[in-house]
Parts: sequence; C-alpha cells; structure tokens
Amino acid sequence: MRTVELSRENVRLIDQRRLPNELVVMACRDYHEVGEAIKTLAVRGAPAIGVAAAGGLALAAQALKDRSEPEFRAGLESAAAELRATRPTAVNLFWAIQKVMDFAATQQGRPPEDAADALYHFAVGMAEADVATNKRMAEFGQALVADGAGILTHCNTGSLATVDYGTALGVIRMAHEHGKQIHVYVDETRPVLQGSRLTAWECVHFGIPATLITDNMAAHMMRLGNIQICFVGADRIATNGDTANKIGTYGVAVLAKEHGIPFYVVAPTSTVDLAIASGDEIEIEERNHEEVTHIGGVRIAPEGIGVANPAFDVTPAKYITGIITEAGIAYPPFPVNLKRLLQGGNQNVGP
Amino acid sequence: MRTVELSRENVRLIDQRRLPNELVVMACRDYHEVGEAIKTLAVRGAPAIGVAAAGGLALAAQALKDRSEPEFRAGLESAAAELRATRPTAVNLFWAIQKVMDFAATQQGRPPEDAADALYHFAVGMAEADVATNKRMAEFGQALVADGAGILTHCNTGSLATVDYGTALGVIRMAHEHGKQIHVYVDETRPVLQGSRLTAWECVHFGIPATLITDNMAAHMMRLGNIQICFVGADRIATNGDTANKIGTYGVAVLAKEHGIPFYVVAPTSTVDLAIASGDEIEIEERNHEEVTHIGGVRIAPEGIGVANPAFDVTPAKYITGIITEAGIAYPPFPVNLKRLLQGGNQNVGP
Repeated sequence: MRTVELSRENVRLIDQRRLPNELVVMACRDYHEVGEAIKTLAVRGAPAIGVAAAGGLALAAQALKDRSEPEFRAGLESAAAELRATRPTAVNLFWAIQKVMDFAATQQGRPPEDAADALYHFAVGMAEADVATNKRMAEFGQALVADGAGILTHCNTGSLATVDYGTALGVIRMAHEHGKQIHVYVDETRPVLQGSRLTAWECVHFGIPATLITDNMAAHMMRLGNIQICFVGADRIATNGDTANKIGTYGVAVLAKEHGIPFYVVAPTSTVDLAIASGDEIEIEERNHEEVTHIGGVRIAPEGIGVANPAFDVTPAKYITGIITEAGIAYPPFPVNLKRLLQGGNQNVGP
Repeated sequence: MRTVELSRENVRLIDQRRLPNELVVMACRDYHEVGEAIKTLAVRGAPAIGVAAAGGLALAAQALKDRSEPEFRAGLESAAAELRATRPTAVNLFWAIQKVMDFAATQQGRPPEDAADALYHFAVGMAEADVATNKRMAEFGQALVADGAGILTHCNTGSLATVDYGTALGVIRMAHEHGKQIHVYVDETRPVLQGSRLTAWECVHFGIPATLITDNMAAHMMRLGNIQICFVGADRIATNGDTANKIGTYGVAVLAKEHGIPFYVVAPTSTVDLAIASGDEIEIEERNHEEVTHIGGVRIAPEGIGVANPAFDVTPAKYITGIITEAGIAYPPFPVNLKRLLQGGNQNVGP
C-alpha cells in the first residue's frame, strides 16, 4: 500500500491521524474531501500533499467531464483555488497544482471527457515520479552515511510523507538496505508527534534500529557523541538555501553546528522556490492551539494560558551542510549551486 | 497553601501529577509515603524534594520516639537511606537529608522523644529558610530583567518546585511584582510537561503574561527576537559551574549562546556540590520509558520502538552567563567565584 493512491473514483490515503495505533485507509471521493484531509493532517508531508492535491484535481475533472468546456475549465480553476488554500507553507502543494493546471491548459479544445482522462493519467504519472525521485535522492544521500553512524532525524519524511519511500527517512532507509549498521534517533516532533507516531512506526516496520527521544533530548544525545549526521526534509527552500521545515528543525540545525555534526536537507527540486530570494519571504502557518494544549484529547495545559503554534520554522542556509535532491547534492554557496542543479548541472555541485 | 507543609502527623504536598486539571493536596503519613511521592513525581523540584525528605525524616523520628536511643538512631539511618535512594540527580535531596542527620547527631544522649521534637522543629526551619532563600534570589535576579523583556524558562521552578515562591520562576514573578512589563515563554518540557502543566498554571494564577510553546519552538522564538533573557533552575551544580537540570536545558543554553541571549541559572547554594569537579561526575537519572511513549494514558508511539528517557542533562559552564544564588550572583570563572560566594564573599562575584 502506498501513502497516496489515485484512481478515477477516489484518492485513497493512509489516515495518519490514527497511526501508530491503527492503520486505516480513507477514500476521498471528491476534491473537497481531499482538501479536508490535507487541512486536518490526515495526509501530510510536502510531497504527499502535492500528489494528493493533484489527485484531487483529477477527481474534480472526472466530476466535470460531462459539462461544457467553459464549465469544465471554471470548475477546475475553482477546485485548484480551494486546494491551494488548504496549507500555506509547503511549496510542493502549489507546484503540483500548477503543474496539473499547466497541463490542463495544453488540453484546450479537447472534449472535457478526454481532457479529464488525460489529467488523471498525468496525476498518476506525478505519483510515480515522486517514488522515482525519492529513490534517486536516497541513493545520493546514503553515500554520505558511514557504517556505524548515529543519525538524527526530525518529523516524518518517510513513506508516509511521500507517495512512497521518503525523503530524509528514505536516505536512512536506503543506508539500512545497503547493509550499513546505523542507529536512528527519532525526534518525537511536538506538537503533532509525527516522529513518535509515524517515523518510529516506519522504523519498527522496516526493522531499522532506532531510539525515540523527546525533541529536547537531541542536544544531550549530540553531547554524548551519539549523533554523527542529521537528515531532515523541507517544505520550502528559498533561492539562497534558507529552508522552511517542521517546527524544531532550526533548533536541530543550530545544535548540529555547535557540535560539528553535518546537517543535510533532503527534498525534491520541486521544493525549491526560485520566486523567493530568502526564507524571510516564507509564510509560516500558525495552527490550532489545541495541538499544543491537548494530546489525544487529554488537556495538558491550564485554561487561560497564551499559546503559540507555528507549524514550521526557517533554517538559515548557513546552518545547512548540503541539500540533497534527485538531481544531486548542492553545497554552499547555495544561490549559485542550487540554481545550477535545477538547470541540470552536474550531480554534486559545490566543494 | 504551600507546596510542602510539615506537621508532626504528616507531610502535606500539592500532588503535581494532577495539575493543571485538579489542585489536590495529599498527606504522606510516614517516610515511605514521602519516598513514594518523590519517586512518582507527586512532589518534584530540587528544593521541594529536599524539604519533603527532611519532613519525612521528622515523621520517622516521631514514629520512633518511644524506642530506645540505639533503635531510634538505627531507624533514622534506615529512613535516611530509603529517602536517599528515591532520585539520584538533585543534590538538594542528599544535602537536606545530611543536614537533618548532622543535626540528629547533635542530639545524642537526649531522650528520643525530645530529639524527635527537635528534629521536627529543625525540618520546619528548613522549610522556612527555603522561602527566604528564594525571595533573596528573586531580588538579585529581577534586577537583571529589563522592562519589556521576553523571558524564556524551562521546566517548573516556581512555587511548585520549592516550598514557596520559586527559583528561576521566582525571579520572573518578582520582576512582575516590581511592575516590569515582561512576557514569559514557557517551554512545555517534555516528557513530564512540567512547563505546560505547572509553570503555565502558575503564570495564569499570578497573572504573569505568558505564551506556552513546545520545546522545539524555542529556537524559532529566539530567531524572531522575542527572547531577551533565559532563567532556568538547577538540580546539581559542579565546582566548575557545569549544571545538571531538567532534560532540554542544555539545548536552550546552546540556542541562547548562538543568539547572544544571556542564560542564567537560579539555584540556592545548597545546589552546589563541591564534592564534584565537573558535570561529568553527575549521575543522570533514566526514567520509565512510558513517560515518553504515553501521555495521559494515551499511547503515542508504536510497540517495539527503542526509547531513551534521561530526566536531566548537563549544561557545561561555558554556556552559563551567571549563577544566581541567595548569596549573590556568581559570574565566570565559576571555579573561583562560586567558591567565593559559598565562603560568604561579596554579593556579586565576577565581572
């Protein structure tokens, strides 16, 4: 089973709100349900929500296939707008929607039924491409992992964050599959606990040796010498290499620098947003405060306390050792080398 | 109500496991029950468990007052041994027990009934001294707080960690009582959530403006410029200034240094352990893994995952701006200036 599976009738998703206690697949029958699944974190992870949104547009097209061409186009635009509004930070969402809409534009003049069919195949192709992209990144990344390494990761960037295989956790999984003796330290990743609920679950599932820690234990583990390398994902990467990712990533990056530990970002090139020069331009989603004050329905904070809940933070490029993409690894200076990678330059750009 | 209240019949404690949802006072009728309350975190915070243990010894003495003097002494030794074994890291526990036992030695030759009575008054005096100590530290510390400051604190170091008033949170409370416009950022402090359950509760109770954050948001708040100063408590301070405190403290210290934010430790001189040269000699308590895998009885991690749960970490002295005690503030070099403070030197030792 893949995390996101597309068909003409529905978008099937592993409902990540119910892990690790239950593995449940939910079927979204229209794009509204897909949007709701993205908003409520039933599906999360930048690559996964991108493909889910593409699948949602394909469903919208199916539902509109008996309409006139103008109605078909207007309906598709309206679905795209609704899906774009679900979450503000991950650029893969906007990228995937734009890719589908650009493709839809090439279908102008064809009967809606044929265009809908073409859109469906296009979305399926995006899902397939995501898996291939992840495996390429994983191969580039795993070469950096020494036998015996302790690896810290944050949030979930595995199969569950993508269509399949994963970004940062994909690198770790590939190192494990290559027979390297590794040990993963999994940040639990408050408030939504993607680390303890999802990454820990994937590590158990794939038999990767791992230790779950609370986020505030990472510094202690580094000081003890347990961590040799860090891999994290990304929700948006600016032209200068500044990277938005799950809240807590920036803290890990600072700690890694202080301990002399290499810190790598693993993300497909679709995560790079050349429209923005630096991380200052990235909008940070502020989520419901109950994610902080309650866990599993249990209240853990008093009534009346103020709460902040930024879902992401920005790690300035100076803390990042390298950015691993499906086109290769970019090293500083990122403003030059990231662009070179995107333009199809050689596979390891930089020092 | 104080967090710890002693009488001849029992040691009354605010049961901190039930906050913030319920304010319940529990009565420990003998030293076994006091030991159990310390082990299970019904009472926690280095100063509070020290005084609770002293109260436990006073109860043991009351129960032994009709015995022969040799039986009285042996019984007291056995109670001290049991109470010492409850938690390994906070030195105040051992300090308080030693203080009571040293006092008991001065009672040699007196009838056990009289010695028991004297011990009770001695323990009550320790409780009173704790409050006075906290207020002195708070006055020294609050002078460092600028009007309008954003303050980060970790764990709970308030009334609930002491007999009354608090150490690091006492400083913050005193700044607030002096009319300074401050805003507190409260780390929730996983795994046991002393920040969200206890510190947030005290902030609401005392009307101190505060924002609860997950531990991994601290770096982001610093980068946004919201934090001007950090105050944390301590469970043990080595001669060189290395400080053991609640897990996560070390990470906050590294982040503060990277952002140029002063980082202060607030603790009574009884927290300084001159028997150890550095933090390497401090035993770190490893607690039950269910504190990490469950919250409020709800499982948040899969079966089969490895878990680490060190209750404390060690912050090397080089990250600490100053150590605020009831005798004044010590600045680096700590090996010289901490000792000077303990020997009754002047009130602000260092630069």
